[in-house]
Amino acid sequence: MSATIAERVLGGDIRAASRLMRDIDDGRASAIPELQALFPKTGRAYVIGITGSPGAGKSTLTDRLIAHFRMAGKKVGVLAVDPTSPFSGGAILGDRIRMQEHATDDEVFIRSLATRGNLGGLSRATGDCVRVMDAMGMDVIIVETVGVGQDEIDIAQMAHSTAVVVVPGMGDDIQAIKAGILEIADVFVVNKSDRDGADRMVRELRAMLELRHAIKAPPMDHDAHHRMVVAKAHGTHQPDGDAAPEEWEPPILKVIASSDVGVEELVKAFGAHFDWLNASGERSTREMTRARMQFVAILRERLLRSALKRLEAERGRLDEVSARIARGEADPYALADELAGKLGG
Amino acid sequence: MSATIAERVLGGDIRAASRLMRDIDDGRASAIPELQALFPKTGRAYVIGITGSPGAGKSTLTDRLIAHFRMAGKKVGVLAVDPTSPFSGGAILGDRIRMQEHATDDEVFIRSLATRGNLGGLSRATGDCVRVMDAMGMDVIIVETVGVGQDEIDIAQMAHSTAVVVVPGMGDDIQAIKAGILEIADVFVVNKSDRDGADRMVRELRAMLELRHAIKAPPMDHDAHHRMVVAKAHGTHQPDGDAAPEEWEPPILKVIASSDVGVEELVKAFGAHFDWLNASGERSTREMTRARMQFVAILRERLLRSALKRLEAERGRLDEVSARIARGEADPYALADELAGKLGG
Repeated sequence: MSATIAERVLGGDIRAASRLMRDIDDGRASAIPELQALFPKTGRAYVIGITGSPGAGKSTLTDRLIAHFRMAGKKVGVLAVDPTSPFSGGAILGDRIRMQEHATDDEVFIRSLATRGNLGGLSRATGDCVRVMDAMGMDVIIVETVGVGQDEIDIAQMAHSTAVVVVPGMGDDIQAIKAGILEIADVFVVNKSDRDGADRMVRELRAMLELRHAIKAPPMDHDAHHRMVVAKAHGTHQPDGDAAPEEWEPPILKVIASSDVGVEELVKAFGAHFDWLNASGERSTREMTRARMQFVAILRERLLRSALKRLEAERGRLDEVSARIARGEADPYALADELAGKLGG
Repeated sequence: MSATIAERVLGGDIRAASRLMRDIDDGRASAIPELQALFPKTGRAYVIGITGSPGAGKSTLTDRLIAHFRMAGKKVGVLAVDPTSPFSGGAILGDRIRMQEHATDDEVFIRSLATRGNLGGLSRATGDCVRVMDAMGMDVIIVETVGVGQDEIDIAQMAHSTAVVVVPGMGDDIQAIKAGILEIADVFVVNKSDRDGADRMVRELRAMLELRHAIKAPPMDHDAHHRMVVAKAHGTHQPDGDAAPEEWEPPILKVIASSDVGVEELVKAFGAHFDWLNASGERSTREMTRARMQFVAILRERLLRSALKRLEAERGRLDEVSARIARGEADPYALADELAGKLGG
């Protein structure tokens, strides 16, 4: 009897994993039993999120991170999520081609996700694909997302550690870093930091973090705090038991990914953050958040598919119903209520 | 007997509209009957989407557009959607304060939306708030969105005409304009076009549009096409009956919003696009798309709320269920299936 897809994925079979991830991306129901079989075998991988505006150099940075993690003997999975291409499908080719320098390395597995359509399946597909890479035995999984929308924030929340990548001179600098991004960043990367304005950007980020800190927590000794942060960023910080670090202050790292400047420091910052996650108990909080996001994403898409199926059976195709709504002949609120009412809600 | 909220909104009551939009943003069920009462009275407004990366100068541009539309005697509604602030709530204050120069103008109505949480209510809330502004009698509604995620693309698709705002020197220029953004842009605005690299950006955008055109359509006379586009952008293009313009080629406009350079041309480009929408029949296609997006958004959120209510009644709070999933004690796929199964899906 031949092995199931799930068994082959657990054995590290690249072809089986690729096929399963394609089915996940396409939203095929056949992927679900395989995911259910993989589910108990997951939870080992360290998941890193890399996010930031288009053009911030995330792909180059991811490429460098792969090389660093490979040198440390880690198996690396990369999931490049590109929600900006709902129609044309996928990221600009160059990004992906560049990463293909690792294509002949068996311990590196790179896939792009470009879930399209309006069923909102992106977070669900991302969570599921992370799970597949986890089950394959990847030690580190890098989830690279373009953009700063709600979906990207959701996806960032699926990671243990998230780096927000910014570039000097992108728009109005400080304006470019919105509050939500501050909240999801565990590490700030000021990439292309040989450009004019890098130091100003670092200062402005620091000022925003301090402002946030002042709002969130009672005033504290800033220098001591800063020393702790620096120690953490350099991997030299050790939680000392009697005073476990309660709050993580995101380090701000100057990086030039294209020439590998500052990337080792970034890897160390991730390591320090992961140690902090474990020491502070934050790891289980994040894993619960991740489980919640994934579950809600699975549920949302599943419900919508069922409801639309029912709608189409009873009221005609979604496009026809939409045309009636557009002409004012059907009430979208009443229709939604009617369909949801059958759920007993 | 006192007037309902809906009646007051139809009468242009700012306070009633503000209250209803706050209820919409909060996802209150009480907003639904009011929206249902408004529904038949909507469909008049011209909806413009303004999107682009953070720091592209969208707020300043919106501000200028308000002034231009006001000079033309139009009532203007502005909905600033900021999904990047799910935790801290709302855009950086400066943006909004700047727009308050119109705050004393009765014919200008500006509101921010910052729907947070993981119920995915952003598109739904945006669609509903556009409807409220439409019902209030706004002639033009500008929906300003930050970012380039799936949500923003969904929101852009709710507009009749969408301007994508880019800035020279943001990252790797051409890389910054992903394929999905090309598809949603009816007009490209190269803002801050006094900066280095503006002409290069215009050339690169044009090259990408031509590439897309070459892929989508059989080769055609580029110069004739270009002349038509220019004529449209200047509002001088008239569909000539025997050769209705079948395809809209997005004009690329150099703008300096902060000093009002090129904004009049942008207003004309919107006008030309709106004429084209009507002449080509594309308007009803877009309104159907908008209705579909809105309906799916309403339905998705309604279903999720019902399912979570049921889950919490039967299995405990979402956080507890999520913790069990995180510990591998509960299977998210089976739970979603069970809840959706009750819908008959």
